[in-house]
Amino acid sequence: MKTEPIGCSPIQLTPVGVVRSAIKAPMLCAKDSDLTLTERMDKIRTEYLHNQNLVSELVIEPCWEELLDGIEDFSHILVLYWPHLLDPARRQLKKVHPMGRQDLPIQGIFATCSPARPNPVLVSAVALLSREKNILKVKGLEAVDGSPIIDLKPYTRGYMQINPIRMPDWMERIHRELTAE
Amino acid sequence: MKTEPIGCSPIQLTPVGVVRSAIKAPMLCAKDSDLTLTERMDKIRTEYLHNQNLVSELVIEPCWEELLDGIEDFSHILVLYWPHLLDPARRQLKKVHPMGRQDLPIQGIFATCSPARPNPVLVSAVALLSREKNILKVKGLEAVDGSPIIDLKPYTRGYMQINPIRMPDWMERIHRELTAE
Repeated sequence: MKTEPIGCSPIQLTPVGVVRSAIKAPMLCAKDSDLTLTERMDKIRTEYLHNQNLVSELVIEPCWEELLDGIEDFSHILVLYWPHLLDPARRQLKKVHPMGRQDLPIQGIFATCSPARPNPVLVSAVALLSREKNILKVKGLEAVDGSPIIDLKPYTRGYMQINPIRMPDWMERIHRELTAE
Repeated sequence: MKTEPIGCSPIQLTPVGVVRSAIKAPMLCAKDSDLTLTERMDKIRTEYLHNQNLVSELVIEPCWEELLDGIEDFSHILVLYWPHLLDPARRQLKKVHPMGRQDLPIQGIFATCSPARPNPVLVSAVALLSREKNILKVKGLEAVDGSPIIDLKPYTRGYMQINPIRMPDWMERIHRELTAE
């Protein structure tokens, strides 16, 4: 068995801006470990629904403002950002119960949307509401206030809209529970 | 006008694997600047259609193999990778004609899918065909052979499938030209 590392060099990123949001802490944190399963599911659902309609600002460094020209013609964009409040030790995690729910089968990190991952570059597809110079208003971004922005891209039909797709039962269940009326 | 930088610290990533692909060079490179518009469009379309069905391998570092457990239950995944052949000087670009086409209006980099951007973390949604230990086979990845892999995530209905969307005319036109029979 091949065990030597593949040996890629480290990569350095410089944030291009910062998120301004009413979300001041991650959805689930250490103190939530005392919640019962029902309390945890209620909390996740309440925050998910709230965040769906939440308007946040993406404040881009003035030196990069010109790179936004034309982005306002897209209804949706991808925001790549860094979860700066994540404990770096959690980047070593290998498996988790999705959303910390013991009733869902444990999964490898790459099979989940957990922010705890080796390179926590988070990707969110959000509605773009407006642009004013170097500031974008977006709806539905779950990033915590102060999160560094790594990149912005258009959400496009050709590359991002895939249908049909297949997901495992546990993910279908999360999706159903979050979106049920 | 506020001009001081927002002042986010640099972020360091360590690749978790590498792409193995039949694509040995980026789709468009410096030598293509001599192409006529028609030649350029033909070249882009031919390579796009070819790449749609191309099977590539994602070779994950053995130390991270366990993080893949469960990913095989998703039909599609997001691959975050680094365009290692990109000239670093191109990370300073502010505007481009999409795909180098002079017939399309010049756009800010954040309004395009250009790999030349301040933090070129590229995101591709691809079909996951199979997993064998630390190696995934995927279809439709445009990454060049040797590209460092930054992260893998599931492609999910709730977070990634957005419909309807609006795109500018130039992007609708690219989409139409690439996908026309």
